[in-house]
Amino acid sequence: MKEKEFINTIKTVLNSSYIGDDCAYLEKLGVVITQDNLVEDVHFSRDFITPYQLGWKSAMVNISDICASGAEPLYLTVGLSLPQDINNDFVKEFYIGMKDASSGVEIVGGDITGANKIFISVAAIGRTFGRKISSRKNAKVGQKIIVAGVHGSSSAGLRLLMNGQKEPEKFIQAHLMPSAQVEFSKKIAENIKEDYAMMDTSDGLADALSQIAEASGVNLEIDFSKIPFDEDLKLFEDYENLIMFGGEDYGLVATVGDDIAKDFTVIGEVKNGSGITIIYQDGMRKSFTKTDIENRIFNHF
Amino acid sequence: MKEKEFINTIKTVLNSSYIGDDCAYLEKLGVVITQDNLVEDVHFSRDFITPYQLGWKSAMVNISDICASGAEPLYLTVGLSLPQDINNDFVKEFYIGMKDASSGVEIVGGDITGANKIFISVAAIGRTFGRKISSRKNAKVGQKIIVAGVHGSSSAGLRLLMNGQKEPEKFIQAHLMPSAQVEFSKKIAENIKEDYAMMDTSDGLADALSQIAEASGVNLEIDFSKIPFDEDLKLFEDYENLIMFGGEDYGLVATVGDDIAKDFTVIGEVKNGSGITIIYQDGMRKSFTKTDIENRIFNHF
Repeated sequence: MKEKEFINTIKTVLNSSYIGDDCAYLEKLGVVITQDNLVEDVHFSRDFITPYQLGWKSAMVNISDICASGAEPLYLTVGLSLPQDINNDFVKEFYIGMKDASSGVEIVGGDITGANKIFISVAAIGRTFGRKISSRKNAKVGQKIIVAGVHGSSSAGLRLLMNGQKEPEKFIQAHLMPSAQVEFSKKIAENIKEDYAMMDTSDGLADALSQIAEASGVNLEIDFSKIPFDEDLKLFEDYENLIMFGGEDYGLVATVGDDIAKDFTVIGEVKNGSGITIIYQDGMRKSFTKTDIENRIFNHF
Repeated sequence: MKEKEFINTIKTVLNSSYIGDDCAYLEKLGVVITQDNLVEDVHFSRDFITPYQLGWKSAMVNISDICASGAEPLYLTVGLSLPQDINNDFVKEFYIGMKDASSGVEIVGGDITGANKIFISVAAIGRTFGRKISSRKNAKVGQKIIVAGVHGSSSAGLRLLMNGQKEPEKFIQAHLMPSAQVEFSKKIAENIKEDYAMMDTSDGLADALSQIAEASGVNLEIDFSKIPFDEDLKLFEDYENLIMFGGEDYGLVATVGDDIAKDFTVIGEVKNGSGITIIYQDGMRKSFTKTDIENRIFNHF
């Protein structure tokens, strides 16, 4: 896993307290910032996504990262590098998609250059004023685990696309045009008093839980039957895996006290230990270390 | 020129007051933000630049954009997409180069993914507190035109590299490891009272002057003999073109009142009219419209 090795190298060189969450919290400025790259034929294929949907998704994945921090998403910049065969309509549809996804968030600048494949890099800025900012290091034993969004739909949609299938269309839509959990994030960050962990499920629910467990030095125990998902996912034999390990739903998962948890969907509790534990309906318990989960995740390298 | 057409499309779709300068000025947050893409075999080649130099330059070009706004450069994020053949040493040297270039500026986050070519997108944030922020729309008739840095060295270096030559090495160094004009920017932005225009010379001195002239609806008249350059540039027959049209020196050019101008290198004055006018040592005057200059600039598409 080269990506992991590279990240360790970067952490060693930079020796920075900012690296660790999806957003960097720039306390001195009252802002958070995040940046994500989307690369053609690594993260998406023009065969499966329209320019409009690509613009939408590029904006939304970064808005989702801001939401995961608890900050208010406000601005985006876009670095776009495009091959020669891209025409003006593509650029127009891409930006309309970005704009439509960015309700309340303004696209304020960026760069446009040539390339041999489509490269998209979006940076997003959020304001922290009046909000408490999360960190994946903040989970504490006894906190409840809450989630927003349904889980598994996006990866079901990706599988349909890869298999050339078109139904159920809602899963394909979930994959191509996800929505960030703006209201969930706002409600928590504006009301919570204690430190809390929050992450989006861009790399899957199990990954988000595992990252929080690792960074906080705790075990996250969840009750599988409590996880919200679309009942039609049961069309897929391995739907339980889609729910736990499928990525790109852009739901949120947070660890919070009972006072906050009571208004949300509680799926489990923070315990002593490490890794994550899933309790299935038949009473079976499965435990996963961070390595177990990393090995199940699609690796871009 | 597709790039120009795309930018017009983007401006139409976004209809945003933020688009126009290299940095977006987010007044509500007291910050400016900029983002630039560097793409392998479009902006650089691994044959000519080391990973360390590439990291250095990636940081510096964005720090230069922040300096052009007059803000204090503070933070960078880096989206890096890398082909499979890139090894850990490359990543390490790249980040050390970035870090060395970023004296006083902290690298706080980003993203790392796969790709088929090296794709680098850096976002930079500057703080506006205690500084007056420039806009290329702000040039006013009667203001003096001042510059920082020497001009033409970087494009001379690029030409040496393309020709397989190694001397004079200082020009190659100027191309591969430019320096942003941090002190010039700070001194102006902290002291100036009136509105002013400032740009970096990333696409050449003539381009910066022309962009300011166009955005401000004025003519920029400069005295060629006042432009600082390295005397060894005269080794190149067309050194006057390198000075005016060669890019990537990352000097700064600004239009300011006499009270500020007196401490800097004055190369000309803002006049009524449009485009730019260059007065050469023999008294010859050459005028260039925006289109004349655009046609001379390397187009990435």
